[in-house]
Amino acid sequence: MDQYPPTERTQVVRRSQRGVYDKPQVHAILDEGFVCHVGFVMNGRPFVIPTAYARSGEQIYIHGSPASRLMKGKEVDVCLTVTLLDGLVLARSSFHTSINYRSVVVLGKARLVTDLEEKRQALRCFTNHVISGRWEQTKQPIDSELKATSVLALPLAEVSAKIRTGPPIDDEEDYALPVWGGVVPVLQSFGEPLPDDRVLEGITPPAVIR
Amino acid sequence: MDQYPPTERTQVVRRSQRGVYDKPQVHAILDEGFVCHVGFVMNGRPFVIPTAYARSGEQIYIHGSPASRLMKGKEVDVCLTVTLLDGLVLARSSFHTSINYRSVVVLGKARLVTDLEEKRQALRCFTNHVISGRWEQTKQPIDSELKATSVLALPLAEVSAKIRTGPPIDDEEDYALPVWGGVVPVLQSFGEPLPDDRVLEGITPPAVIR
Repeated sequence: MDQYPPTERTQVVRRSQRGVYDKPQVHAILDEGFVCHVGFVMNGRPFVIPTAYARSGEQIYIHGSPASRLMKGKEVDVCLTVTLLDGLVLARSSFHTSINYRSVVVLGKARLVTDLEEKRQALRCFTNHVISGRWEQTKQPIDSELKATSVLALPLAEVSAKIRTGPPIDDEEDYALPVWGGVVPVLQSFGEPLPDDRVLEGITPPAVIR
Repeated sequence: MDQYPPTERTQVVRRSQRGVYDKPQVHAILDEGFVCHVGFVMNGRPFVIPTAYARSGEQIYIHGSPASRLMKGKEVDVCLTVTLLDGLVLARSSFHTSINYRSVVVLGKARLVTDLEEKRQALRCFTNHVISGRWEQTKQPIDSELKATSVLALPLAEVSAKIRTGPPIDDEEDYALPVWGGVVPVLQSFGEPLPDDRVLEGITPPAVIR
């Protein structure tokens, strides 16, 4: 099976029927998101920071994470979570109001990427994650820029996804209530590209917007 | 000043010009999001879970958080983060590729809400946070449902926001490159409400979709 083996920490306990360990489904969620939330522990307390990321095979690169400030060449425990919002679930009773979503949680030790070639590949992943093929259209980083960029690498090993889809689940007797029940889809879309005021004449925005 | 006083933990260090402590701006970000990411520490390791939330004045209620499983009537250290994605920032150099976003980080000790009346008010906040006025249209929870719901309360005391807006910032010499630079807005919208197959005849979806 092409699955991440559940561990004690990734086994979905609450509403376990929503747990997903299938690699293609996990990859699809990670590839669709733009921002991840990285959790780490500092002085015994939790911190959660939003940052850019990109998947490269069975590894995730995390961009310029403040977690890297903690690191002195060693590894650090992190939890990386990506959540996509799909819909507002309106039940007939407030108690069953819910949200349709797809989320992935990745646990593990992140390592600081120090090799310049690997950093270059990570930046390529970040750039092409934002817009496919963008790396090839832009000026690529020089070594001093690579050195100035913090990158963490996190293996996709201890991973779970959780997905809620479909209509509200009301108590049977509540379906008789004169209250509308259903889902309001939440959609993400892209607006018209806004050029800055330094774009050269004749240069148009990239055709591929993911 | 109507601001959250920065502390050692909330002072924005990296790109400090993006730090915001203004209460109305923090409230607006919290009120616009649907899902927060809650970080907590279990056995010394970080966990980050997406969940529903709602602001009530200077307090945030967190819905059914798995963090509540850790609690035995006491308080627990959490970090709650809400991030809104506003745009893809396409610079002429890969190094300056970025994202426009608004995020809020709240640090503090969450307390388990046990009083049924406060729980009822928290559920009212959750429901009306999803769709304004929805609580008043739906069947309200009975005591056994309130008892079955976990709610945490977190004060808005140690809080910071971080905001990036505007065009890419390229190096001066790179503006001469024949590469498009600007912002692709990311928009969140709502689709046509999808009724489930039990909606009674003549019942239409709520007029107010936030």
